[in-house]
Amino acid sequence: MTHIGFIGTGVMGRSMAMHLLKAGYPVSIYTRTKEKAEDLLKEGAVWRETAEELAGHSDVIMTMVGYPSDVEELYLGDHGILNAAKSGTYVIDMTTSKPSLAIHIYELAKQKGIYSIDAPVSGGDVGAREARLSIMAGGDKEAFEACLPIFSIIGKNIVYQGPAGSGQHTKMCNQIAIAAGMIGVSEAIAYAHSAGLDPENVLKSISAGAAGSWSLSNLAPRMLKDDFEPGFYVKHFLKDMSIAIEEAEQMNMEVPGLALAHKLYTELSEKGEAESGTQALYKLWKSPSEN
Amino acid sequence: MTHIGFIGTGVMGRSMAMHLLKAGYPVSIYTRTKEKAEDLLKEGAVWRETAEELAGHSDVIMTMVGYPSDVEELYLGDHGILNAAKSGTYVIDMTTSKPSLAIHIYELAKQKGIYSIDAPVSGGDVGAREARLSIMAGGDKEAFEACLPIFSIIGKNIVYQGPAGSGQHTKMCNQIAIAAGMIGVSEAIAYAHSAGLDPENVLKSISAGAAGSWSLSNLAPRMLKDDFEPGFYVKHFLKDMSIAIEEAEQMNMEVPGLALAHKLYTELSEKGEAESGTQALYKLWKSPSEN
Repeated sequence: MTHIGFIGTGVMGRSMAMHLLKAGYPVSIYTRTKEKAEDLLKEGAVWRETAEELAGHSDVIMTMVGYPSDVEELYLGDHGILNAAKSGTYVIDMTTSKPSLAIHIYELAKQKGIYSIDAPVSGGDVGAREARLSIMAGGDKEAFEACLPIFSIIGKNIVYQGPAGSGQHTKMCNQIAIAAGMIGVSEAIAYAHSAGLDPENVLKSISAGAAGSWSLSNLAPRMLKDDFEPGFYVKHFLKDMSIAIEEAEQMNMEVPGLALAHKLYTELSEKGEAESGTQALYKLWKSPSEN
Repeated sequence: MTHIGFIGTGVMGRSMAMHLLKAGYPVSIYTRTKEKAEDLLKEGAVWRETAEELAGHSDVIMTMVGYPSDVEELYLGDHGILNAAKSGTYVIDMTTSKPSLAIHIYELAKQKGIYSIDAPVSGGDVGAREARLSIMAGGDKEAFEACLPIFSIIGKNIVYQGPAGSGQHTKMCNQIAIAAGMIGVSEAIAYAHSAGLDPENVLKSISAGAAGSWSLSNLAPRMLKDDFEPGFYVKHFLKDMSIAIEEAEQMNMEVPGLALAHKLYTELSEKGEAESGTQALYKLWKSPSEN
């Protein structure tokens, strides 16, 4: 039986690891804050004290952490995954991280006979909980196919996007499309408000047509209810946009919409909203009296 | 039987007038280019030589023309609709036009005992053809309700948005949400291309999730096929964005996403793309060799 090691049991990682456990896989866990793994340990997961220990006991290692720096440390550190994993192990980073780092990890892994796949996801906490994440994968196609049984337990829309880094690049496309789109949604709601319209009624007119989007249908109603709880954190969106801007620069590509979104979200974060959900962008348009 | 006068038989107006004819209404037509009304005349519509003549013979007058200046001339000119229509007539402007002009027409109409409704639509040529336009209406609620039987012949999502001008303001919200969104879609596709991904495959990963939008599902595939035929003209979108920017200025509201979209579409228009569809925005990111 394939032994899975799972590192990073935040809101999303926890749901993903739980689905794997319930599907019958033996799962080892390592995460920074052990309390966050308690549900999983109760369900039969085995606790490992370090990433190194976990790596030595796993056939497939999945990581779902916060920042590229975390990924780098986990995989490339002296006591990191690539030093500890056996030849023939599959390592799957599902964190949204740098395409260049994914390629670097892939190359080092390959030298050690380890198969590396970058497989970031979209679908958020709800998608993770309901096992219908969209998984965008990069790496060797054979390695991707070998991992399909595992992917299909946690996701629904699983697409192989090409060589190492392609999963991360695809996730960047996802975030780029969202970035400028969120400005449009915020401005539309703010305009409705300023023009004296009933914004909920406006949504009835515009959500189903050419202006329609996931953000308009799912986040605009939260803006109107002053619900700024994080489905997706401002701080994580900023991290993703920074990566995309850096990659775009390396490709000599102009991204004025993405740059504007990054500027506005930075402003928002500086106003103390880093831990809010991305729909808090709308707060930039609310008059101080309404805040 | 209610006599309908229809002015403006462009791509959308023609389909709308045809539905009204087929529903059994007597329809009079006036439009700048008579040939564009030929199908309708064959179907039994009555030709009128001027807007003035049409107005005198109609209980309900519907207009679907190009620019606010056309609306102004049609309604407010010496031989315009408001001078020629009988008291008790309903006038419905379905052009996307200025909220302030809609309010002005409403006020002048009211003095003459004429009911004015601003009722711009979204859904494009396809929505008009399939009689499933989204209709966003402003004006007196009783007048709106009196016109509902007519609206329901050409539209599906018919929402009363409030007093005169509210229909136009709602349409501005629609265009504002689209504006920044189109930048996001163009940048995402351009990034996919630059990163060496297969953009069609990327769409499979990102269209159904949080990055999903009508534009991504309907216009991105046209970008990839080099299909820049107009579903919605760049020149008309620019007109709409100009109105929205002007209105936002009057409300002291900042619209950086809309302003950026207006700047990019102006650039596109100056490159000779005014008659292209809005998806041609993507051309700004294509290298000269690909154009």
